Amino acid sequence: MIRVVLVEPEGEQNVGFVARLCKNFGVDELFLVNPKCDLTESRRFAMRGVEVLDSSVVVPTLDQALKDTDIKIATSSIADIPGDILRKSVRPWEVADIMAGKRAALVFGRESVGLTREEIAMCDLLLHIPANPEYEVLNLSHSVGIVLYEIWRARSKGERGSVSAEAIDLVGKYLKLIFDEISKGRDDLPMYYAAKRIVLRSLRDEEEARTLIRLLRKIYLKLKNEY
Amino acid sequence: MIRVVLVEPEGEQNVGFVARLCKNFGVDELFLVNPKCDLTESRRFAMRGVEVLDSSVVVPTLDQALKDTDIKIATSSIADIPGDILRKSVRPWEVADIMAGKRAALVFGRESVGLTREEIAMCDLLLHIPANPEYEVLNLSHSVGIVLYEIWRARSKGERGSVSAEAIDLVGKYLKLIFDEISKGRDDLPMYYAAKRIVLRSLRDEEEARTLIRLLRKIYLKLKNEY
Repeated sequence: MIRVVLVEPEGEQNVGFVARLCKNFGVDELFLVNPKCDLTESRRFAMRGVEVLDSSVVVPTLDQALKDTDIKIATSSIADIPGDILRKSVRPWEVADIMAGKRAALVFGRESVGLTREEIAMCDLLLHIPANPEYEVLNLSHSVGIVLYEIWRARSKGERGSVSAEAIDLVGKYLKLIFDEISKGRDDLPMYYAAKRIVLRSLRDEEEARTLIRLLRKIYLKLKNEY
Repeated sequence: MIRVVLVEPEGEQNVGFVARLCKNFGVDELFLVNPKCDLTESRRFAMRGVEVLDSSVVVPTLDQALKDTDIKIATSSIADIPGDILRKSVRPWEVADIMAGKRAALVFGRESVGLTREEIAMCDLLLHIPANPEYEVLNLSHSVGIVLYEIWRARSKGERGSVSAEAIDLVGKYLKLIFDEISKGRDDLPMYYAAKRIVLRSLRDEEEARTLIRLLRKIYLKLKNEY
């Protein structure tokens, strides 16, 4: 399941174009967080994606838009800045595997300022579309189009082995528990983000994920002196 | 060399968006065949691609737009109709190789009716973007974005940040030290192998690797009650 989430979209056209793209690439759900534009105007740009627009879900906060999803993927044109672990990114062609078989949210920010650091931190991964370093900032709807196309492309090629939502959840949970045991404060958070991303990006079958979970569980219990 | 050719574009926005995309993905030339819209209006949508728009070449016929190119690639949302050889198509990910080292023209048709059969016949290949069979027709500028992205992607592959041998070694070392702390025997070894593989496969730059090493070191010291 794919849910596209637009956070405070500002342009009528972009919302319309995104609805069309959702139809073009078989997206299941469109969520709009506190839209700043006239959705009635957007219908003009949605063409045969108008049904997606009409059934889109408007919510006041990103938190609510992320409900009931297993994996949350933020997108940004600003990524991989040295010294900023939160902005370490994955590439569009890597996310299809990661999303396979899960309820995935693809989160796109405002046309003007993108997503805040807090919003990025609410997601599991940061997706970045590589482009000309001289001018990497894509228009919102074009970013959506490229990401959805990549996922469609990957899905219509051979399917990969997948990892259950439960396993992903457990990996995240145990990493957090371990991190909480050793962390001395907020400055340590980048270590947690890095570990989570490194691991989630790489998981590709259930057996491997379960083996990792066993290891993480044992580390955690040992840290608590319960093993 | 890549030349994007728009044949009789009808929408100001699309031309502006395409100029921006040309800048985003390092396209060398933009040719407009008999444009049906107001190019001054298009400047508003071009953002930092406005220089591409201002240096675009307006010509009256497709023939002139194809001059001095080695390979000509038409695009269409209508492709691969049984019995129609003209509409046998290639996929976006196949064209980058075909174009490599050549002067290539990528030809996109009108928003309303695309390219005529005659125009397609003037080109060497027909490119088709696969999408939802229920509604395959992409907006013009989104088609351009996806095609240019694919070509950019193919060209820039293999230019990843790298991880030093020392960092890889340290990750392996700490994983082993942690594993030895919690392992109760040989049967546990798969956990170590899985963790190592998951992590090493995913590491992609030195900074991220160093952050992970810090975390692993802290976990290890904590397990030894030295932290």
